[in-house]
Amino acid sequence: MRMSEGVEWAVHSCLILAWVEDRGPVPTARLASRYDLPAPYLNKQLQALGRAGIVTSIPGPKGGFRLARRPERITMMDIVAAIEGPDEAFRCTEIRQRGSAGDITMRALRRPCSVASAMRTAELAWRRALAAQTLADVMTETERQLPEAGDRVRRWFDRS
Amino acid sequence: MRMSEGVEWAVHSCLILAWVEDRGPVPTARLASRYDLPAPYLNKQLQALGRAGIVTSIPGPKGGFRLARRPERITMMDIVAAIEGPDEAFRCTEIRQRGSAGDITMRALRRPCSVASAMRTAELAWRRALAAQTLADVMTETERQLPEAGDRVRRWFDRS
Repeated sequence: MRMSEGVEWAVHSCLILAWVEDRGPVPTARLASRYDLPAPYLNKQLQALGRAGIVTSIPGPKGGFRLARRPERITMMDIVAAIEGPDEAFRCTEIRQRGSAGDITMRALRRPCSVASAMRTAELAWRRALAAQTLADVMTETERQLPEAGDRVRRWFDRS
Repeated sequence: MRMSEGVEWAVHSCLILAWVEDRGPVPTARLASRYDLPAPYLNKQLQALGRAGIVTSIPGPKGGFRLARRPERITMMDIVAAIEGPDEAFRCTEIRQRGSAGDITMRALRRPCSVASAMRTAELAWRRALAAQTLADVMTETERQLPEAGDRVRRWFDRS
């Protein structure tokens, strides 16, 4: 079970957009150059962030992407769901109803399979933990490790 | 991000093995017939459970699989890790060191990237929740919904 690397790209792109928020929109090509990523594939992730209402695409020669809302209002769950989709990691195919096990009573089928419930409990713990961490939290933590992190990104942006 | 369906098969197989524990080992073909699953692919999952020390393969004409330890000592985490492998869902490829971002100082690199840390917090919440639920718990929950669940499996086993 592996998350696509698009999630890593998307979170780092959102961090950059947050740090240069006062500079205006950032074109995909510039975001891609920051991390030496393939622009077309990064653009796919940015489009997905756009559909999820996390970034906005500004058209025109001075256009590009910017955050659609404040970093305090964007959670890691928002970004992961935008890239990975809304489905849960475990999908119950109801094998309890298959083969010779298919004689299960209708009454029992009214409740979800207890295997699926056990997996859902864990899925919800994961989602809650992602939803509890905002982009602003990750910015703060990054700047705690490297206080000049935001300044470096802004210097790169102004220079490039 | 999707868990393989082998996880669903593995947990349900372990439930059957737990319910017929006093009957002796169960051959793959019989487990597969219970849920109308392809025996060779189910066998692959059972081999993985064997390598993880969750089930034991008993050779011989009366052989098959049985649980290697009590259901109270097998967690959902054990089974998921046996089938999905030990890797975390999010894999940091250190894009913070790539492209023009690669001028990051060595000091900052001593700590994991804060994006990876945020993802790891959620991964650990998921793992803790899976580790907190044993096969015995899932048996209990199944029997709470369908009190005759174990008896039905044992009757099927004795009959088939």
